[in-house]
Amino acid sequence: MSHVADAEIVGINWGSSNFRAWRIAGDGSALDEIVAAKGVAGLSREAMAEAMAALAARWPDHGPIYASGMIGSNIGWAEAPYAIAPAGMADLARAAIPVEIGDSPVRIVPGIACRRGFDDAPDILRGEETELLGLMELAPGDGVAALPGTHTKWVRREGGRIGEFLTAMSGEIFDRLTGQGLLASIVEGEAADGPAFREGVARGRAGGLGLSSLLFGARARVIRDELARADAASYIRGLLIGSEIADALAAFPEMGEAVVPLIGNGPLSRLYAAALGSVGIETELVESRRACLLGFRAIHRASLG
Amino acid sequence: MSHVADAEIVGINWGSSNFRAWRIAGDGSALDEIVAAKGVAGLSREAMAEAMAALAARWPDHGPIYASGMIGSNIGWAEAPYAIAPAGMADLARAAIPVEIGDSPVRIVPGIACRRGFDDAPDILRGEETELLGLMELAPGDGVAALPGTHTKWVRREGGRIGEFLTAMSGEIFDRLTGQGLLASIVEGEAADGPAFREGVARGRAGGLGLSSLLFGARARVIRDELARADAASYIRGLLIGSEIADALAAFPEMGEAVVPLIGNGPLSRLYAAALGSVGIETELVESRRACLLGFRAIHRASLG
Repeated sequence: MSHVADAEIVGINWGSSNFRAWRIAGDGSALDEIVAAKGVAGLSREAMAEAMAALAARWPDHGPIYASGMIGSNIGWAEAPYAIAPAGMADLARAAIPVEIGDSPVRIVPGIACRRGFDDAPDILRGEETELLGLMELAPGDGVAALPGTHTKWVRREGGRIGEFLTAMSGEIFDRLTGQGLLASIVEGEAADGPAFREGVARGRAGGLGLSSLLFGARARVIRDELARADAASYIRGLLIGSEIADALAAFPEMGEAVVPLIGNGPLSRLYAAALGSVGIETELVESRRACLLGFRAIHRASLG
Repeated sequence: MSHVADAEIVGINWGSSNFRAWRIAGDGSALDEIVAAKGVAGLSREAMAEAMAALAARWPDHGPIYASGMIGSNIGWAEAPYAIAPAGMADLARAAIPVEIGDSPVRIVPGIACRRGFDDAPDILRGEETELLGLMELAPGDGVAALPGTHTKWVRREGGRIGEFLTAMSGEIFDRLTGQGLLASIVEGEAADGPAFREGVARGRAGGLGLSSLLFGARARVIRDELARADAASYIRGLLIGSEIADALAAFPEMGEAVVPLIGNGPLSRLYAAALGSVGIETELVESRRACLLGFRAIHRASLG
């Protein structure tokens, strides 16, 4: 069976905005890659089938195909019901739904739903499960990991499975509130680590006031010459990430005592690393693509079992 | 002097988006009104002068003219530096700056800046000072008042002056996050008082998690069939107002023990009343226009002193 487990597979991370497919070798490395702005949010079923036909034409001898992300949601090809946390690779492989997209057989990996003990509230993820499985191949062991993004996920791993998690939409809040409106008028340039960012993190984490008040306060500081316009983006990002860290620590108190893997790419993950570092939490950056590839391999292996 | 104090005046509430002028009788009632979508954010200096010329043409025998709001900001006609809290009507009358807009002499009422003891942070208001002075005519006495709006102000009155205050931009957060993006996809209809709103208020006020996490949770609830789409707007508004109430109570603990005047108009003020009522705080609605008229009269009288 090992020759099958080591066979090439195709993994597709098919989200709302983007289509990213890899031909994955048995060792988890990428042999080839297709990246296109063909997220499901903008595609008809015909266009989804065409995207798969293009993939099959480029990789005629492809192995089994796995897809994760919004392709499995109610705006995707077919709804893959959420697996219930805690869920490991065997659970996700079992819950993957077999479909044909155009002429291509594809197994759609489900997302995961949890109910947090901390606040008895539901949470959901879809797409991140694959990266998390990959992380568990790279760095087995329990503890909290974070996936910084537009909707950042903070996830507890327990016994090799994905347990409770917490989503904060601070990336979207930052984008929408600084794109136009009151805060757009004070923001110049990108957020960066530095004193303004760290002061934001500290204020956001302190929890003295909620984000709605703290965010207006950024404008008041600029108008009162207590914050430079050039530092406003950094301060606002800091408030949002600091508030998120407070939430993650409340929901997952053990987070303060171990290295937190950050699965992501580029500047945003580095800001999270700086923010966590400033409150004494060590982090380790894990490239998102690497985690995703290994995650698809893990699901494939579990599918064979 | 009383015949001068009782003379007619003109008061202009000139904000970013709107121009609202009243010819005000000695008893504080409105004799006539001009309302136009001529906020300073969209007007050249020439257009501001034209708006004043139109006012003078309609009211040729007008008395002294007072204007408040963004007309006194760096995007208005001339910058009226913030008075420093605590500030009463004599302080504001003294700090008003005399200008000529076109051919009309106008006294621009300054905004107010404070530094809160609670969190040692600056805050600012501009335009609301006039309504607050009017409120103090209508209902003398100390205590916290709120002005629900896009950027809601919670203000402590002390000894007949405007003291510390707190601004929360939850109205703008609601508008931007439900206008497009993740939350737009779950919101149907307007927010209204009811069980979903009150659950939002309770969750927002509890402070277990910050707004960034709570807001994503609204979507998770809808996806997991724990919240109806028709109730999502109410729940989200509730989260935001509940979080704001927690902030206001933290900054102004005395608020829990007295009737809170709500200066505003219509449905939003009623939602604040319902939210405060659900946490045991009594409120009293004060019409915004009435407060504004009386505020201009108070500043006029103080100017004569």
